[in-house]
Amino acid sequence: MSTSHAFDQAIALSPVSPNLYQGQTSDAFLNMVGPFGGATAATLLNAVLQHPQRLGDPVSLTVNFAGPVAEGEFEVEATPLRTNRSTQHWLLLQKQNGEVVTSATAFFATRRETLSEQQLSAPVAPAPSSLQRTPLNIRNWFKQYDFRFVHGIPLQPIPADQPADTESLLWVRDYPERPLDYCSLSALGDVFAPRIFLLRNQFTPSGTVCMTHYFHATSDELAAAGTGYVLGQAKACRLHSNYADQVAHLWSEDGVLLLTSTQSVYFKE
Amino acid sequence: MSTSHAFDQAIALSPVSPNLYQGQTSDAFLNMVGPFGGATAATLLNAVLQHPQRLGDPVSLTVNFAGPVAEGEFEVEATPLRTNRSTQHWLLLQKQNGEVVTSATAFFATRRETLSEQQLSAPVAPAPSSLQRTPLNIRNWFKQYDFRFVHGIPLQPIPADQPADTESLLWVRDYPERPLDYCSLSALGDVFAPRIFLLRNQFTPSGTVCMTHYFHATSDELAAAGTGYVLGQAKACRLHSNYADQVAHLWSEDGVLLLTSTQSVYFKE
Repeated sequence: MSTSHAFDQAIALSPVSPNLYQGQTSDAFLNMVGPFGGATAATLLNAVLQHPQRLGDPVSLTVNFAGPVAEGEFEVEATPLRTNRSTQHWLLLQKQNGEVVTSATAFFATRRETLSEQQLSAPVAPAPSSLQRTPLNIRNWFKQYDFRFVHGIPLQPIPADQPADTESLLWVRDYPERPLDYCSLSALGDVFAPRIFLLRNQFTPSGTVCMTHYFHATSDELAAAGTGYVLGQAKACRLHSNYADQVAHLWSEDGVLLLTSTQSVYFKE
Repeated sequence: MSTSHAFDQAIALSPVSPNLYQGQTSDAFLNMVGPFGGATAATLLNAVLQHPQRLGDPVSLTVNFAGPVAEGEFEVEATPLRTNRSTQHWLLLQKQNGEVVTSATAFFATRRETLSEQQLSAPVAPAPSSLQRTPLNIRNWFKQYDFRFVHGIPLQPIPADQPADTESLLWVRDYPERPLDYCSLSALGDVFAPRIFLLRNQFTPSGTVCMTHYFHATSDELAAAGTGYVLGQAKACRLHSNYADQVAHLWSEDGVLLLTSTQSVYFKE
């Protein structure tokens, strides 16, 4: 459907042998050092999604960014560690020159209808169509998204009379538009800049080291979200001694919670 | 210092060969099926903590509960996947009879003093000394903790005029007292019952499948917390189609945020 989209090109993998795939970094999704972490997370998930032994849909994905990913080719080892009747646990290793650059675990399951309760409502926000696209073209990957910030634009001067606040609220979708799926949702869960950028008016060397996504979205809900925007909220609970956390959520335009995500983020000084 | 404590016995491991440890489940920490997940998480972290190649302190730990842990002996494979100048990434596999029962990844780092900012304050709560110990003796592992609930006791009838709320707030510490360390903090981060128990007045088959801890606490902060209580807050954002998330935090009695944790929790129907 959308194989010519830059995102599909960025996360594409070729099977090499059982449990082994090959891919290459995409210029369109370059960050400061190597690719945007969200694209890497999506690529690792994509290895499971196309694996012939895959069972069910993604429920959780944890990615550990172990070292810089160099531009060029890489391998992904996707190993089913344990398969139960309706659940499956995966180990994913991205390697370059035999060295682990990213490790991940993923949990897949077949899901059935049950009690349904959403406790966290979407924050009140103006419609995305009423907002301007926020110009964020610092790195290549920013250009692949249509960001419409409600508040919390990184690296903006903080008025002296306002308390420090690490919360961002924004609408975002792929640019150009692309129907939402588990891979693009994985990448969208990582579009929030390091929260340290909201405490400081100047760039601080920083980067995600670990990220966990919990996929609330079922395939029906992804289809319903379609090419609409998602509303993203991210904030830090504590930042100190080189590391900060980040708790983030993504809702559909209809207010359905699609993703709960947490990160541990390194920052210097 | 506290090697005769039931918790230390539960998480004890013997080195077998490089990267391989042996342990056994503890009756004191039994849950409905196999051991309390928090004890398993602490045991896996303990493998890294005693590994001769370990660098720095824990920053994050993700545990995937892949299958039931049978009572008795198990092996833990602890493999350093990548070691950088001041950071280290680990893969941990708990096995019984050659089959993976639990997988985990851990991220360790040496931490330096930096900007320090806590954005999430501890919720207001009465002092633990002003509260009674909450009787929760359903499973063995409950007896190893001194729980003092402020609100959100699982499986309590919900008054008809109150909206469904999955939040719990409670003081908790090891029983008998034991100085806080990274292992006990890992276990304490898993003491919250499945949030589905707060929506229903009856027991529902359920269990954590994935859990991620972000350790804010430095070793100095753990020492300062000592044998005091920690204040724990947990709530679900969404529960549907067999899975719920849970976002939890633990603060010291002095209000220092020690841990941010998230879970994905299975529930039936």
